[in-house]
Amino acid sequence: MDIATLRASHPEHWMKAAAIRVLAMDAVQAANSGHPGMPMGMADVATVLFEKHLKFDAAHPEWADRDRFVLSAGHGSMLLYALLHLTGYPGMDLEQVKHFRQLGSKTAGHPEFGHAPGIETTTGPLGQGIATAVGMAMAEESMAARFGRKIVDHRTWVIAGDGCLMEGVSQEAIGLAGRQKLNRLIVLWDDNGISIDGKVSMSDATDQLARFAASGWEVLSCDGHDPEDIDRALTAAARADRPVLVACKTHIGFGSPKKQDTAGAHGSPLGDEEIAKVREIYGWSHAPFVIPNEVAAQWAEIGKRGAAERYQWEVRLDQLPAAKKAEFERVIAGEAPKKLAGAIRKLKKQLAEDAPKVATRKASEMALAAINPVMPETIGGSADLTGSNNTLTADLGTFDVDSRKGRYVYYGIREHGMAAAMNGLALHGGCMPYGGTFLCFADYARGAMRLSALMGAQVTYVMTHDSIGLGEDGPTHQPVEHVAMLRATPNMNVFRPADAVETAEAWEIALTTAGTPSVLALSRQNLPTVRTKHSSKNLTAQGAYVLAEAEGKRRVILMATGSEVEIALAARDLLQAEGIGARVVSMPCWELFEAQDEAYRKKVLPAGPVRVAIEALSGFGWDKWLSGERGASKKAGFVGMEGFGASAPAPELYKHFGITAEAAAEKARSLL
Amino acid sequence: MDIATLRASHPEHWMKAAAIRVLAMDAVQAANSGHPGMPMGMADVATVLFEKHLKFDAAHPEWADRDRFVLSAGHGSMLLYALLHLTGYPGMDLEQVKHFRQLGSKTAGHPEFGHAPGIETTTGPLGQGIATAVGMAMAEESMAARFGRKIVDHRTWVIAGDGCLMEGVSQEAIGLAGRQKLNRLIVLWDDNGISIDGKVSMSDATDQLARFAASGWEVLSCDGHDPEDIDRALTAAARADRPVLVACKTHIGFGSPKKQDTAGAHGSPLGDEEIAKVREIYGWSHAPFVIPNEVAAQWAEIGKRGAAERYQWEVRLDQLPAAKKAEFERVIAGEAPKKLAGAIRKLKKQLAEDAPKVATRKASEMALAAINPVMPETIGGSADLTGSNNTLTADLGTFDVDSRKGRYVYYGIREHGMAAAMNGLALHGGCMPYGGTFLCFADYARGAMRLSALMGAQVTYVMTHDSIGLGEDGPTHQPVEHVAMLRATPNMNVFRPADAVETAEAWEIALTTAGTPSVLALSRQNLPTVRTKHSSKNLTAQGAYVLAEAEGKRRVILMATGSEVEIALAARDLLQAEGIGARVVSMPCWELFEAQDEAYRKKVLPAGPVRVAIEALSGFGWDKWLSGERGASKKAGFVGMEGFGASAPAPELYKHFGITAEAAAEKARSLL
Repeated sequence: MDIATLRASHPEHWMKAAAIRVLAMDAVQAANSGHPGMPMGMADVATVLFEKHLKFDAAHPEWADRDRFVLSAGHGSMLLYALLHLTGYPGMDLEQVKHFRQLGSKTAGHPEFGHAPGIETTTGPLGQGIATAVGMAMAEESMAARFGRKIVDHRTWVIAGDGCLMEGVSQEAIGLAGRQKLNRLIVLWDDNGISIDGKVSMSDATDQLARFAASGWEVLSCDGHDPEDIDRALTAAARADRPVLVACKTHIGFGSPKKQDTAGAHGSPLGDEEIAKVREIYGWSHAPFVIPNEVAAQWAEIGKRGAAERYQWEVRLDQLPAAKKAEFERVIAGEAPKKLAGAIRKLKKQLAEDAPKVATRKASEMALAAINPVMPETIGGSADLTGSNNTLTADLGTFDVDSRKGRYVYYGIREHGMAAAMNGLALHGGCMPYGGTFLCFADYARGAMRLSALMGAQVTYVMTHDSIGLGEDGPTHQPVEHVAMLRATPNMNVFRPADAVETAEAWEIALTTAGTPSVLALSRQNLPTVRTKHSSKNLTAQGAYVLAEAEGKRRVILMATGSEVEIALAARDLLQAEGIGARVVSMPCWELFEAQDEAYRKKVLPAGPVRVAIEALSGFGWDKWLSGERGASKKAGFVGMEGFGASAPAPELYKHFGITAEAAAEKARSLL
Repeated sequence: MDIATLRASHPEHWMKAAAIRVLAMDAVQAANSGHPGMPMGMADVATVLFEKHLKFDAAHPEWADRDRFVLSAGHGSMLLYALLHLTGYPGMDLEQVKHFRQLGSKTAGHPEFGHAPGIETTTGPLGQGIATAVGMAMAEESMAARFGRKIVDHRTWVIAGDGCLMEGVSQEAIGLAGRQKLNRLIVLWDDNGISIDGKVSMSDATDQLARFAASGWEVLSCDGHDPEDIDRALTAAARADRPVLVACKTHIGFGSPKKQDTAGAHGSPLGDEEIAKVREIYGWSHAPFVIPNEVAAQWAEIGKRGAAERYQWEVRLDQLPAAKKAEFERVIAGEAPKKLAGAIRKLKKQLAEDAPKVATRKASEMALAAINPVMPETIGGSADLTGSNNTLTADLGTFDVDSRKGRYVYYGIREHGMAAAMNGLALHGGCMPYGGTFLCFADYARGAMRLSALMGAQVTYVMTHDSIGLGEDGPTHQPVEHVAMLRATPNMNVFRPADAVETAEAWEIALTTAGTPSVLALSRQNLPTVRTKHSSKNLTAQGAYVLAEAEGKRRVILMATGSEVEIALAARDLLQAEGIGARVVSMPCWELFEAQDEAYRKKVLPAGPVRVAIEALSGFGWDKWLSGERGASKKAGFVGMEGFGASAPAPELYKHFGITAEAAAEKARSLL
C-alpha cells in the first residue's frame, strides 16, 4: 500500500504510525547517528501489533503475564523507544527520546536490557533477539505447565530483519522452536530486501518462507503497510499450532523520496532537507519531538488497553492457593528456595566424608541431583552431549511438546541457540536455566554468552572437558584460551572447581547470584576430593583460599585451579620433602577473589614467597596473580600450555606438555 | 539395502567397503576411544565416491587440480584415515592406523590439517567442514576464472552429518553457496537419524531437503548402502547447475547387531564381543588391521585412478605461457609477489610525508588500494559492513555467478560463514582471503577463527570499530574483552596499529606470514599519523618499539596500542612539561614482540621506570608487560576499561571511562 492510499483510507492509523516514524527520524537526526529506515518501514506493523494484539499494560511493565515484545532488529531501536514513549511506559519520557544515543540516557544505540522497563532483552548483535525469544516462549510453556493457563497465558512477538535471518544462530533458533512447536512465538519479518551493503539479493537468495516451513513453522505474509492486512495476518498467527513467521513486505525508509528502498536509509540520518520533504509527504507539520495531542491521546489509550486484563489476572493470582501464589512470586522474583542451602550443605558434608574420586562433571551431576528436587525452577539441557556433560538428573523429565512440565531440554547440536534460549528463559522470569556443552564450544556460543554478561542474565553454563584432560579427541576439542576469554569478559563468574566439594559450592553461588551468569569449567577426568575437612562455609565464594598451608618457613606459593590443584598438592609434597615450605592456594573463581578486600587477598597471596601457577590452559592473564600489583614476588612462574593441545590419552598429554608435579616443583626450585 | 542383499549383489564393493568398516571398528577399539558408527555407516558412499567420482591421485596429494574431499563430520575420522591408507596416500601407513588417537601419530581423534597429506582441512567442531568447503569451491571458481578450466576444473565433496546441519554456521554456508550457485560443491549428508543424545527427532524436525532447496540447492537422495543408487546420485550431482545436497540414507554402525541405528554406535568402541559378531555378519575373517591382498590391491588401483589425468594436467600446465605458469605456481605456493614490498614502502613514505589524520580502518583501505593491484590473489569481502570496514578497493570487482574474476565477496550477515569460507579459500591454495566485520562480532566468528589459528591458515581478519571509540552503537557493539580473547589464542597475530603507517606495516606482515592468521583491530575514529619519520624497515614486525624517547631521565614508560598511542603521546607531553622523562612504546603486536630476543625486549621495556599501559579495552593480560617476568618495575598501572562500554559519542566515552592523557599522566605521577 502506498502512502497516499494509506493516508486516505486509514487516517487515524496513519497519524499514529507517523508519530513513530517522525520520532525515529528526528531522534536519529538529533543524535546524528542511528538507523531511521527500519522504524519508518515497520511502523505500521508495530502500530497494529500494539493497538490490537500485544497484551500489555504500559503502567505495569513487570506484569508477569504480559506478552513479550522483542526487537531482534535492534538497530531499529527508535521503533521500540517511540512505542514505549507513546504508550506511556514509566521512565521513557520525551527527554529520553531527545537524548537518543547520549551518555546516561535510557535510549542507547541498541536496546539495552535494564535501561528501561519494556526493553525485554538486549539486541543489536543480529539474530540474538529471535533466538532469545525462543527461550522466552519455552519459559512461557514451562510456567504454564507449572502454574496453569489462568496465570500464564501470553505470547512472544519478535520483529526480525534480514540480518537476523541470515545469522546462523537464527537457524538454531528456528530448528529448536519448530521441533518444540512453540505456537506462542510469532516472528514478524521486516521483509524489505535491503541490508547495509545494498540489496539482500546481493548476498542471499533464500526463500525464507520455504526455509521456515521446512523447520516446522507456519508461514504467513502480509502487506506491511496495510493495517487491515497486517491485522488479518497477526490474527491468524495467534491461532496457529506451531511457531509462526509473518513476512511483512515493507519499504525501508517509507516515504523518503531519496532513500526509501535503499541502503541509504539503513544506518545514517536522513538529513534535514530530506526530513523536511518526508514531513510534507507524511502530512506531519509538527516540529521535531512534538506529538499532537490527539495522536498522543490515542497512543496513551493503547498503553492502557491491557489494564483491565491485568487487573483480572491479579485477581486470579490472588485466588491461587497461598503456597502456589508464594511459589509463583518467588520464582518470578528469582529468589532461590530456602531449602537450597541445606541441600548443598548436606551434600558437602557427605562428600567430605566419602571423598570420592570423580570428575567434576560427575560432581556437577551429584550437585544437580541435590539441587533439582528442591529447586523446581531449574531447566537443564545440553547441546547433544547429555551423557558427557552430566546435566540430566533422574527427576527432571523431558521438556517436550506433550510434556511441558518436563525440565530437561534436548537442545540439539546448537550451542549458540541454547545459550540464547537460556538468556530468554532467564529474562522471562520463573525459570533458572543451565545448559551443557564442551568448554571448547564456548566459541560457538560466545555471541549469546556475552549478552548473558552484558544483561546480567542468571544463566549457568556447564562447560565440561575443560582442558587437555579431554584427551583423545584432540586439539579441536581441547580448550586452551577459552577460560582466559571468559575471565576477560566483564560480569561473568568463571568457576574451575578442584573437586566435588568446590563444584557443589560453585553451583550454590551460581544459583544464588542474581545479575551475573556463571561458567562452570569441569573436568572430564577423575579428580580426588581435596576438601576432605567439611566446612559449612562456602570457601569458593572467596574466589581463592589456602587449601594446604606450608610446613615450616613459607617459601613457595603454588596456585592452581580445577584439575591442576591435585598437581599443586603433589608438587607441595615434593617440595616439603626437601624441606621447602609450600602453600597451596586453590583459586576456583578469579572474579570472586578479586572482589574480596585487599586484606584477604594479601592474606592468601602474601608478598615474599616464590609463586608458581599451574593450569593446563593458556597462561594468558596469570601474570595478574603471579606478579601483578598486589604485592607479588618478582620471582614467579607458570606451568601450563603454550600452544594447542594434541590427541592422546590425557595422562600422556600432561606428561608431554610438562604439566606435572615434578615440573611445578622444579619451576619453584629454579626460582628460589 | 540390507547387508545380505548387498553382499550377494555387490561382493567386490562389499569387501572394499568392509575394509573401511573393519579398520574403523578395530582402530577405535584399539584406542579404546572414538566414533566407529559413522565410518561403518558411510563406507559404501565413500567407496563409490573414491572409486568412481573423486578426482585424485593418491601418490600426488598436492596436485592442485584434485577434487577436495572434506569430512565435515570429523568425529568419523577413521573413515578418512582408512581411505587414505587403503588408497596409498604417502605417510598413512598401517602403523598410523594402529596408533589412532595416540601421541605423535598422524591419526588424531579428529582430522588435523597438516598431519598428513589428504587431510584437506581440520574438522571436528561441527559445521566447520561444510562451511570451509564453500570457500574451497569459491577458490576453485576464482582460480578457474584466472587460469582457465584447462588448469582448474575440480569439485569439492563433503560428508556432513546431522550435527553439521544443525549448527548455525551451516545455514550461513548454505545461504552463501546457494546465492553463489557453487555447482561444484556437493554435500553428502549422512542421513542416519542419530546424534549423541539419541534420535535426531528428539531435537530436530527439519526437512533438510526442503531447507537446502529453499536456499537454492539441488537436492537428491539415495540409499546410502546401495552402490548403484549412490553412483546414480553422485553422477547426477556432478551435473547440477547449483550446489547439491545428497541425502544418503544410512544406518549408523551398519551391521552391528546391538548398536546399529542407536547412539551407542556413535562415540564409543563397540567392544570385542560385538566386533566379533560384526566380523561374522560382514564375512570378514581377518585379524585386526589385516587387509586381504585382493582387497588391498583393488584399493591400491583406486588410489591410482587419477594418475593419467594428473599427468595430462601437468602437460597442460607446462603448455601455459611461462609467465602464467609461474604466476600459477607462485599463488599456489602462497608466495607474496615481489612487487608487494615496494608498494608498501612507497605507501609508507607517502604517509610519513602527508601525515594524514584518518581512522585506521581508512588506513587499511589505503593499504589495500596499494596491495590489491599488485597481488591478484587477494579476495576481499565483508559480512555486510563494506562501507564501515573499508574492505573494498576500486579495482576488485564483485565475485559473483557471472563474474568469477571479481575479487570482492558480499558475504552477507554471516561472520561465521565468512571466516570458515576464508579458511577454505586459504586452504585450497591460490587465494589470499581477507574479510571484515566489527571486532565485537569476532564473537560470532570464533569457531572458525580458532581453526584458522590451529591450521595455520593465512587469513586476514579486518576487524574495525575496535573499542568504545565506536561510540553511539553502544556496548553490544563495543569490544572490551575481544582483543584479550584473540591474544590468548595460540598462533594468531593480533595487530592494533596506531596510525596509517603501522596499518600498512601490519598488512605487509599479514600477507607475508605463512602459517599464521592475522587480526587487524582498527579504529572507527580518526587518528593522527604518529610515524611521521619514514623508515623503510617494518617496525611493527618487532611487535613493539620506542615511538618517542624520554627527554632527560627516563622515569616513566607509557605503553599503548592503536587509538591509545595518541593518548600516550599526549600524556608524555604532560609529564615532560613537568620535567618527568617519559618514553612512549607503541605495541601493535604482542605476539611479535614476544618473539623478539630478550635483549630487544629489555631494550624497549627496561627495568626501572614506572610503567603505565593505556588501552581502551579490558586490561586482562596486560600484567605480562606491566609487571611480568621480564624485569619489570613493581610500580605499574593500567588505564582502560573495567566493564562494558556505553552508548554515546566516542569523545564523551573516553572522558567518561577516564581513558585520557590526563588520567594516564596522573596514574604515572601517583606511581612515582
